[in-house]
Amino acid sequence: MTQDRDIVVIGCGAGGGTASQFARKIDRKSTITIFEKNKYPQYSKCGLPFVVSGVISDFKNLIEFNEEWFKKANIDLILEANVNKIDIKKEMIYAKQNDITIEKSFKKLIICTGAKSFIPPIENINIKGVFTVRTIDDTKKILAYSKNLKKATIIGAGLIGLEIADNLRQNGLQVTIVETLQNILANNLDEDMSKIVLEKIPCDISIYTNHTAKKVEQKDGKITKVIIKNKENNEEKYIETDILIIATGTKPDTMLARSIGCKIGITGGILVNEKSETTVKDVYAVGDCTEYIDYVTKKPLLAGLGSVAVRQGIAAGVNSAGGEYNLPMGFLNTNTSKFFNLDIAAVGPISIRIDNEFSVISARYNGSSLPDYYPGGKPISIKVLVDEYTGIIMGAQAVGENAAQRINTIACAILARLDIDTYRKLETAYAPPIAPTLDAETLVCDIAFMKIAQKKR
Amino acid sequence: MTQDRDIVVIGCGAGGGTASQFARKIDRKSTITIFEKNKYPQYSKCGLPFVVSGVISDFKNLIEFNEEWFKKANIDLILEANVNKIDIKKEMIYAKQNDITIEKSFKKLIICTGAKSFIPPIENINIKGVFTVRTIDDTKKILAYSKNLKKATIIGAGLIGLEIADNLRQNGLQVTIVETLQNILANNLDEDMSKIVLEKIPCDISIYTNHTAKKVEQKDGKITKVIIKNKENNEEKYIETDILIIATGTKPDTMLARSIGCKIGITGGILVNEKSETTVKDVYAVGDCTEYIDYVTKKPLLAGLGSVAVRQGIAAGVNSAGGEYNLPMGFLNTNTSKFFNLDIAAVGPISIRIDNEFSVISARYNGSSLPDYYPGGKPISIKVLVDEYTGIIMGAQAVGENAAQRINTIACAILARLDIDTYRKLETAYAPPIAPTLDAETLVCDIAFMKIAQKKR
Repeated sequence: MTQDRDIVVIGCGAGGGTASQFARKIDRKSTITIFEKNKYPQYSKCGLPFVVSGVISDFKNLIEFNEEWFKKANIDLILEANVNKIDIKKEMIYAKQNDITIEKSFKKLIICTGAKSFIPPIENINIKGVFTVRTIDDTKKILAYSKNLKKATIIGAGLIGLEIADNLRQNGLQVTIVETLQNILANNLDEDMSKIVLEKIPCDISIYTNHTAKKVEQKDGKITKVIIKNKENNEEKYIETDILIIATGTKPDTMLARSIGCKIGITGGILVNEKSETTVKDVYAVGDCTEYIDYVTKKPLLAGLGSVAVRQGIAAGVNSAGGEYNLPMGFLNTNTSKFFNLDIAAVGPISIRIDNEFSVISARYNGSSLPDYYPGGKPISIKVLVDEYTGIIMGAQAVGENAAQRINTIACAILARLDIDTYRKLETAYAPPIAPTLDAETLVCDIAFMKIAQKKR
Repeated sequence: MTQDRDIVVIGCGAGGGTASQFARKIDRKSTITIFEKNKYPQYSKCGLPFVVSGVISDFKNLIEFNEEWFKKANIDLILEANVNKIDIKKEMIYAKQNDITIEKSFKKLIICTGAKSFIPPIENINIKGVFTVRTIDDTKKILAYSKNLKKATIIGAGLIGLEIADNLRQNGLQVTIVETLQNILANNLDEDMSKIVLEKIPCDISIYTNHTAKKVEQKDGKITKVIIKNKENNEEKYIETDILIIATGTKPDTMLARSIGCKIGITGGILVNEKSETTVKDVYAVGDCTEYIDYVTKKPLLAGLGSVAVRQGIAAGVNSAGGEYNLPMGFLNTNTSKFFNLDIAAVGPISIRIDNEFSVISARYNGSSLPDYYPGGKPISIKVLVDEYTGIIMGAQAVGENAAQRINTIACAILARLDIDTYRKLETAYAPPIAPTLDAETLVCDIAFMKIAQKKR
């Protein structure tokens, strides 16, 4: 193995932490240095909403690998160090820690700069009581500010928005959600599936879909109202609120990657391949700052899931350290969440992400998690998207009991590029207290298969 | 479609009921007649143990399709009709209902005669207080007899034995289990995995493995003791008991199939293929009376799961009615159960069922259902068996949270004949309240992959 394989990792999120860990497993000798601009070692961003309600009792629980752990692994973790320049020819990196400049040479560079909260253009937004939920510090501020408040408004009805809504509601706040798109969870579920979720959201939560937040009003420097506009009829409306949370997604942070000539994809992420290599030699990128392809459609797709960052981190870590690790030829984008005691999950592109190149047949099935005769069965709704001509399963969405595990099984079918006729015959595990003889995840595929067969007649 | 495609089905269990249902979907005209020797229409045998404790409150709940349903579907269900002769040349079937002989001609015959409880050679076994758990009537007798009893003994620590043990214990009985093999669940789990289950069985249950029941003793015609023998040192021991349940598996009921020349496989089941055809033209067989092959090893394998019977029923029903339905080229044998609040599940052959043709690498992983930082995670142990040379996943076993759903995902991988390197990279759904970034079902495959890679070095 090369003596001279020193690795620098920028960013100690799930991607950067994992990359350094796997690099160390392969290469015991070279130096591995992580520059992290914030003051916390590797922690779970996805856990932040659950600290708000106290379900996760302390921020320190979110720390998955602490400074001690990195020390023992012989990885130099430098916190509060802001990388401000990369000289790719000299193989040097320059960071500021307080006022000190740190220089470090590298042979391999792994960029894990993540993403920044996207802030929609809302008038007067830089006011007390308006927050994003991206970091521990963001969330600490929310916790401190939201004590003894009565009303919260959340902009954005995606996964994070709904998780935050649930957790603030658990704290006794009256919650309003404003979503600019027609449906909640518009990035995760088709319209019909998102309606199932909408019906199950507690009725004490007000949801305005197809509404844009226009302006924030204040008193004594603190937020008091949000003005929202109905996109259909342009009618405006006030929502009284004591706190406003912006959960309208993120934008990849690609500044450093651009500075060294890494190609940026059309989605705005750093282009990477199945080895997590960028277009610049010896430079890898991982996680929310990257763009790869959708496994099914082969179209560009932003990373943006913790699970994906970890897997890219493994690839970048192993490959940069001289091993070999190829990711599948695209993201499955398998995702899940739980709010208001409802599980949702999905895999593959949703319908609107599949363009006219494909002719898609969809089917939906509403069943129960248990056989009818066994008490305690819970509803499960599954939708599947299938390529009409090849019969290959393209995507699936589920709402209800064990949605994630059922979607994982279909994710495996998609990974294997199974056709619907093969998959619908999968022998799933059956026992009265566990599942019916034919599970929803294959029954929905039976329906899709019949639809395709009928069209071919 | 042929006018002359009349179908006769023998047996209205899960297999026969499903076959008739799917035949009717394909062919609206021909007659479909089911002869069922017992007095109940299609019901769930797998639900029987749960009626014992009252979890399922009434036997009538177990009836999945009642006489009315079959009538509406234009299927003649003839109950308490014992088929005693098939004339295959004349295409005639003869059954006795009370003292009346019923004759019916057929063009297609579907044999779903199921299996009979296997009764091990125990001296004095035909005594009051000894039961099997195969039918509603069996279970009604157990319920009636077990009221106000104190001690129950179960022979057989398979799925049914443990389910019955759990349900009798819920009724307040003190339960002893006797198993002739070295381990409990010896047909479902490898020794190491069955030990995990053993550790979690409540300590008020006595379990004797490697012990054979020799003799039953009685007082006033009722059972009072079982004498068991330690197979290792031949020591004998008395167990005082008020009731004895025999749960030592079943034997295929193939008498009628033999009478018309259907070939019987080496396991004792009626040989069927992927269309559920027997070796006799126009004769199908379905469910517990059949033998097909193991999808992984290609060796003969008895059916014996309700889930399999239903799938074979679909195939026999569709094919006999002139449609086309091919099952996968073997059983995955995906199975699950729940007892003492513990889920177990498995797919594919267990280690002892894989002969020397294969070189098997196994790996085990003990993890949690949730990320460490999220409260409420429950243990999950998974074992995977992999073909060392091809890397193809052969089987898996799980004990713990959502064992069945995790096994379903691996079942899909086995169905697709995925190799371990592809499967271990599956993007599973992640969210703090749902699952860790890397789930146990793929992590165990990482370990197996590493083991194989190390051996190849």
